[in-house]
Amino acid sequence: MDYPVMDTQISPEGRLDVLSKAEINKLLDTSHGGLYTIFRHCALAVLNSGNALDDGKELLARYPSFAISIIHRERGIKLDIKNAPASAFVDGVMIKGIQEHVFAVLRDIIFLNSEIEGNPQFDVTTSQGITDAVFHILRNANLLQPSINPNLVVCWGGHSISGNEYDYTKHVGYQLGLRGLNIGTGCGPGAMKGPMKGATIGHAKQRSSTGLYLGITEPGIIAAEAPNAIVNELVILPDIEKRLEAFVRLGHAIIVFPGGAGTAEEILYVLGILLHPDNADIPFPLIFTGPSSAADYFKQIDQFIGGTLGAKAQARYQIIIDNPELVAQRVNAGITEVRAFRKSTSDAYYFNWSLRIPTEFQQPFIPNHQNMRQLQLHKNQEAYLLAANLRRAFSGIVAGNVKAAGIQAVQQFGYFEITGETDLMVSIDSLLSSFVQQQRMKLPGTQYVPCYHVIK
Amino acid sequence: MDYPVMDTQISPEGRLDVLSKAEINKLLDTSHGGLYTIFRHCALAVLNSGNALDDGKELLARYPSFAISIIHRERGIKLDIKNAPASAFVDGVMIKGIQEHVFAVLRDIIFLNSEIEGNPQFDVTTSQGITDAVFHILRNANLLQPSINPNLVVCWGGHSISGNEYDYTKHVGYQLGLRGLNIGTGCGPGAMKGPMKGATIGHAKQRSSTGLYLGITEPGIIAAEAPNAIVNELVILPDIEKRLEAFVRLGHAIIVFPGGAGTAEEILYVLGILLHPDNADIPFPLIFTGPSSAADYFKQIDQFIGGTLGAKAQARYQIIIDNPELVAQRVNAGITEVRAFRKSTSDAYYFNWSLRIPTEFQQPFIPNHQNMRQLQLHKNQEAYLLAANLRRAFSGIVAGNVKAAGIQAVQQFGYFEITGETDLMVSIDSLLSSFVQQQRMKLPGTQYVPCYHVIK
Amino acid sequence: MDYPVMDTQISPEGRLDVLSKAEINKLLDTSHGGLYTIFRHCALAVLNSGNALDDGKELLARYPSFAISIIHRERGIKLDIKNAPASAFVDGVMIKGIQEHVFAVLRDIIFLNSEIEGNPQFDVTTSQGITDAVFHILRNANLLQPSINPNLVVCWGGHSISGNEYDYTKHVGYQLGLRGLNIGTGCGPGAMKGPMKGATIGHAKQRSSTGLYLGITEPGIIAAEAPNAIVNELVILPDIEKRLEAFVRLGHAIIVFPGGAGTAEEILYVLGILLHPDNADIPFPLIFTGPSSAADYFKQIDQFIGGTLGAKAQARYQIIIDNPELVAQRVNAGITEVRAFRKSTSDAYYFNWSLRIPTEFQQPFIPNHQNMRQLQLHKNQEAYLLAANLRRAFSGIVAGNVKAAGIQAVQQFGYFEITGETDLMVSIDSLLSSFVQQQRMKLPGTQYVPCYHVIK
Amino acid sequence: MDYPVMDTQISPEGRLDVLSKAEINKLLDTSHGGLYTIFRHCALAVLNSGNALDDGKELLARYPSFAISIIHRERGIKLDIKNAPASAFVDGVMIKGIQEHVFAVLRDIIFLNSEIEGNPQFDVTTSQGITDAVFHILRNANLLQPSINPNLVVCWGGHSISGNEYDYTKHVGYQLGLRGLNIGTGCGPGAMKGPMKGATIGHAKQRSSTGLYLGITEPGIIAAEAPNAIVNELVILPDIEKRLEAFVRLGHAIIVFPGGAGTAEEILYVLGILLHPDNADIPFPLIFTGPSSAADYFKQIDQFIGGTLGAKAQARYQIIIDNPELVAQRVNAGITEVRAFRKSTSDAYYFNWSLRIPTEFQQPFIPNHQNMRQLQLHKNQEAYLLAANLRRAFSGIVAGNVKAAGIQAVQQFGYFEITGETDLMVSIDSLLSSFVQQQRMKLPGTQYVPCYHVIK
Repeated sequence: MDYPVMDTQISPEGRLDVLSKAEINKLLDTSHGGLYTIFRHCALAVLNSGNALDDGKELLARYPSFAISIIHRERGIKLDIKNAPASAFVDGVMIKGIQEHVFAVLRDIIFLNSEIEGNPQFDVTTSQGITDAVFHILRNANLLQPSINPNLVVCWGGHSISGNEYDYTKHVGYQLGLRGLNIGTGCGPGAMKGPMKGATIGHAKQRSSTGLYLGITEPGIIAAEAPNAIVNELVILPDIEKRLEAFVRLGHAIIVFPGGAGTAEEILYVLGILLHPDNADIPFPLIFTGPSSAADYFKQIDQFIGGTLGAKAQARYQIIIDNPELVAQRVNAGITEVRAFRKSTSDAYYFNWSLRIPTEFQQPFIPNHQNMRQLQLHKNQEAYLLAANLRRAFSGIVAGNVKAAGIQAVQQFGYFEITGETDLMVSIDSLLSSFVQQQRMKLPGTQYVPCYHVIK
Repeated sequence: MDYPVMDTQISPEGRLDVLSKAEINKLLDTSHGGLYTIFRHCALAVLNSGNALDDGKELLARYPSFAISIIHRERGIKLDIKNAPASAFVDGVMIKGIQEHVFAVLRDIIFLNSEIEGNPQFDVTTSQGITDAVFHILRNANLLQPSINPNLVVCWGGHSISGNEYDYTKHVGYQLGLRGLNIGTGCGPGAMKGPMKGATIGHAKQRSSTGLYLGITEPGIIAAEAPNAIVNELVILPDIEKRLEAFVRLGHAIIVFPGGAGTAEEILYVLGILLHPDNADIPFPLIFTGPSSAADYFKQIDQFIGGTLGAKAQARYQIIIDNPELVAQRVNAGITEVRAFRKSTSDAYYFNWSLRIPTEFQQPFIPNHQNMRQLQLHKNQEAYLLAANLRRAFSGIVAGNVKAAGIQAVQQFGYFEITGETDLMVSIDSLLSSFVQQQRMKLPGTQYVPCYHVIK
Repeated sequence: MDYPVMDTQISPEGRLDVLSKAEINKLLDTSHGGLYTIFRHCALAVLNSGNALDDGKELLARYPSFAISIIHRERGIKLDIKNAPASAFVDGVMIKGIQEHVFAVLRDIIFLNSEIEGNPQFDVTTSQGITDAVFHILRNANLLQPSINPNLVVCWGGHSISGNEYDYTKHVGYQLGLRGLNIGTGCGPGAMKGPMKGATIGHAKQRSSTGLYLGITEPGIIAAEAPNAIVNELVILPDIEKRLEAFVRLGHAIIVFPGGAGTAEEILYVLGILLHPDNADIPFPLIFTGPSSAADYFKQIDQFIGGTLGAKAQARYQIIIDNPELVAQRVNAGITEVRAFRKSTSDAYYFNWSLRIPTEFQQPFIPNHQNMRQLQLHKNQEAYLLAANLRRAFSGIVAGNVKAAGIQAVQQFGYFEITGETDLMVSIDSLLSSFVQQQRMKLPGTQYVPCYHVIK
Repeated sequence: MDYPVMDTQISPEGRLDVLSKAEINKLLDTSHGGLYTIFRHCALAVLNSGNALDDGKELLARYPSFAISIIHRERGIKLDIKNAPASAFVDGVMIKGIQEHVFAVLRDIIFLNSEIEGNPQFDVTTSQGITDAVFHILRNANLLQPSINPNLVVCWGGHSISGNEYDYTKHVGYQLGLRGLNIGTGCGPGAMKGPMKGATIGHAKQRSSTGLYLGITEPGIIAAEAPNAIVNELVILPDIEKRLEAFVRLGHAIIVFPGGAGTAEEILYVLGILLHPDNADIPFPLIFTGPSSAADYFKQIDQFIGGTLGAKAQARYQIIIDNPELVAQRVNAGITEVRAFRKSTSDAYYFNWSLRIPTEFQQPFIPNHQNMRQLQLHKNQEAYLLAANLRRAFSGIVAGNVKAAGIQAVQQFGYFEITGETDLMVSIDSLLSSFVQQQRMKLPGTQYVPCYHVIK
């Protein structure tokens, strides 16, 4: 099949416009250690926004002749783009929001390369060093805005959800938008797009022209979950763990909609952190919600959490079924507490410094066959550590499902094997099976072939 | 049934804030010749936005204790509002967009009273005098923006349309918004709301924060077609004829979606004007469009026009079925012509001075029983004059359907009688019958009782 | 002597851009009752800004071929200007500030003609009617800004002052600007320009980009006191009395620098009003100030006031010699009181509604020979009425000095005769003589020929 | 003598607000390798703005108890300032412009420390590496604005000039401002302040609210040449050579007013670079100007250049006496050429990449006794290298005059000895003598004691 393509040149707006000659040279050097490759890959992903595709490997195959390069001009740089997906254009002109995403990619790729990687300032073997790196990446992306009251609601949930669930996420977003709240998601379609669309209407009715629709992504996932064009701030973290850290340091509340393995990973991540004793007193609004049809789904999730992490974990979230207005009101009330807490501790509104994130949640987990098999999945450890290991298990499954490297590994070596305490294995297997059954693992229309095997 | 209400005080932003003591006194004087009454009525209508109700008389009955008054403060005026519909509020705070509508009402009511009515500067017995009044009202509402390229697409169509048709209007609005086009409608739900919602998303993707969602209304219709809160510019003309003139002087293209008697009135208005010989060479993009399900509907409309106004009228519009992108592209192409024409004639982009509007379309038509019965409905007159009279017939039916005064007249004296040349009567009757059948006369859920009788 | 001239076309920014066809026709109609004449006259005056000339008649004589007309274009109107003073241009392009002044003239001339004159809404035989007209003119000029704290300092003083005094007015302006205060003057050079230049530097240091430099003028004086280009809001009132009313309704404090007959007129105006019993409790900061060299001058003024209006009048102002910082601090303290008073009485910050201005100060005084001779100049009347009559006497002298009509009358019929109680005549004569001696009546370099004769 | 002081807390606006914990800790650590010391020193210098003092050592002595520290708050950081010079305040509130300077200091000190120094990305042993560092510092200070036409006029000249010369710099600034040109200087009083004040008035008349008044300084000079509060962008380069590079990479034209040793250093710097063969074809407008009284001064300078660097160097500048308007017109014409050249070579408008700056002008010159004595001052080298060495000589003298380290060195070890070819020595000595005679070496009121000895 042939995919229609287009060429164009685009100019950025704002500070990024200004690159040094050294920065440009690094990006132009196609032989350079991967910088051009990763830039090209991420740029292609954002240009493919709006097309239903959650397979990073497939994306690259579709647009083999796609190319992107930098031109130096007297008024600043331009990007010269060849053979980009035609869907990024309206009547031959690239959609402005997508243009911005391309430049956000450029900004972050340059920053990661020149300021973060190999910079002795950031000791990434320590928790503080990693957090500091996350802080600098977010600041460079202009996401740490002082003097603004807490208002960022992170929305998690599946990219593959039913029309009914999708409409529900829009309604929730609308109610959030009416209350002046902003939306952050992992980009992509489904539960990550609906709340933004709803909030756009809510913001419009409240004449808020400063509505923030934040997308937080990483190179491994961006192809599968490209930012839709409403996203008006986009940031690319270097890996999944820093992306998750960005979510919980930036967000003032989290809403979880129905989803699959990725959503489970996110739930385990945040609950694991909140279970750490140092975080016991930190307010952190966390709401699981969906339409009536999702009631069973959340019952299942709740049981899984109860069965693995226990009642303490269950006490950290509330489940609200089919009531967008109540969700928004609870979020609002929760954020009021967050604000009071930050004020009383002089912690920044724009970055949750107080939250202790154990290194187990920060160190990148490489989802290869060996690492997957050796995960410590048993209850003979502190709950937060079990959460960390469960998180890694689901992270590996996501990689096997949608990330280019993961897909390739599974194709080569067969499925990942997951093993551990029997009753944990039973819980995991039943949860995953339900995801498969409900078509939450991949976009509908495709036949899902599991990338894992739970050894009970 | 009891309708929940709320109290509040709101402050305006901008110039209106500043009223003279004389202006305030006039509005406060509840005994004054109707100024307070009309202000209260229109304010209530905009506060009721979002509620399905297309009956002006019913609205006033629902909120008998609604009151609105002006308070003078050192920083400017405030409005004190009692017993307003609770739906205008989110968690006790009035939605910003609705606040703005209330102040737009205030601005226009004051301006109409103090600057237009009884001002010897405007000779409303002449065509020029009426146009001049329309111009001043629009200028006072800050709607005549120089230095901006033509971009306003007027969308007409019914307030009572199917979900399918509604979604279609959103898709068209989305495609218009992606192209940087703005939307003007008559306010209200259905085909007047969908394009704005769609355009909001389109504008967001193109990062256009200056998107215009213009509502043009008049005191008689505002209760039935309250502006939804996305409308970010609202203007109230004194009567239906000046409102229609505002549409065609401001709009650079018109899209007609499926609708009922009101939509027919609008079609006859614009076609009548375009049929005037003086306007033969003026470009005026006019597109009838709807989803596949509306194909028959437009065939019917097309036949009615062919049968009454003839092929010349038919040549003035194009019908596009189920193709939002094409609609947007055609509109764009049409506006390019409009721009070239205005430039070549040095006519303003922001006001269509060149268009000749015969007085038959400008003089207010009072839809009482006598006037309805005496309409000249025969083909023995110039096509544009027949259009003018047909327009009046449909205008009367709209009044009988949804306007407070019209409803009352019909309740008191029975239905309006429409009479004239037999074949015209047959055409009219069959068109109206189809509207009734398709539930286009009133919001669904109500049983439509015709307010007219066509005498064949 | 030949004066260099230039041609250009200029476009406005903002709302004024949009004129109706009727408005344009009136202005183009050179035979029309004076509208074109007055527009041309005022436009020429603002274009002549920066040139030392305080004689309106001479100005018109210098540029006989100056012409200005309106062109209608698709993006709005343009002004076509022929043979304008070359000093209004930099390298062939008109200075932006002067462009704005031309359009302010256009705005006000149109508004006065179409909305104020002959509008039954304004009954100019009553005090309220006149105040209402002033209010509407100022609102139309966008000068009534709600939601802003009181901050406008009106600066009065001569157009013909020494370099030393001029520098002093700059220092005072600088200290006001540092405190975020804005400046309003009667336009023109000298004491009306210095405070604005000083405030510009003060505002720049405080990063205030919203600094207001307001010029308030009227057609009779504009030629003699053209706004310098720093003036960023300009308003033209129809006559001297409405101009004076604008000063005291808008200003939150008044500073008087040394000046001549015009300054004396202004002092008498404000003191007369403040002497009215109804205004006894209204705070109104009023400071006379100048450098050390002006100490004697203000002693003389103070004695004149003591001798004519009495100690009550003297209690209304303070005299500060050679201390710009103290002046600014006192003004600031005074404005704080004004703010508290307005708040406590719910009076607008942007318009001093509370101040009672007796009609004697509102009715236009025509300075012809008969009116001048018949002035009631005796102490057998309330102090505020004596102030009103003294004000008229000085107003007449200003007219004879610098206004085209006044100069012509004196040339034709000889000097104005001023007569009344002997000791008053002595006071007046000695004050005027000192003005002549100090070169305060006309710009230096010209020989002042008195236009009046005081009959003792 | 006691100097009045004040305490305050100030909040920044914008991005800087957001510091990481690591950054704050470094600054708070008073024992840390000089970071707090240099921050305190520079902060004190900008707070002392407006006071006549050009002696960095003296400044620190005057305010021994001055302290500045960072407080972390939920809405961002604050600076807590103790015992700051009272002149930075108006009625107890710090002048906004000075606040901004303090935060500019903070921004640059942090950036230099964490991003430039010791960062392997910048190889400061190469010309490219140094230029890259300058680029990053300027970009971080938000000074590299794309999409803007060339408009920055660098003004050089003495901090100690006569009232007459000072007024002249204002007139030139005014003419530049009227033409929409911006001003960059080295901060400080005299010729570095006058053009900004003049341009402020010019910009105001042209309604330009985006006027740029750029101060470029370095820690060694900031105490002697504190930015006056009009400076609305301030950047601190790490040393004098990078500061000079910033001038010529950013500026689109350079005007030189009369000055002393520092001005001579600057002239030699720019001429030396322009003499490099690689720069022969690069347009670079360079104008020496002053009032009539400065005619002799520039004749002297011109002779010195002719006698040392030759006619080629003289061809690179023009001398204009007593004609501010002509200066502005020539600058404008020159910038038009610069623009055309940059466009034709696709070089950035905002950074003069094309200009070759030999490392002799980039490597920091440490002005100690040994280095000064060993300068290669003879004509047996390329002209541009002679210029580089002459530049160093004058740089050393500036250090001995006003920089804390230089003053101390001279106090300890006696004056710097300058030696070389006899006729060069004669030229230098006579030039320096004339500077001393004309009181250009230090602020008036002080007795200048030479810090050098020219060995002929």
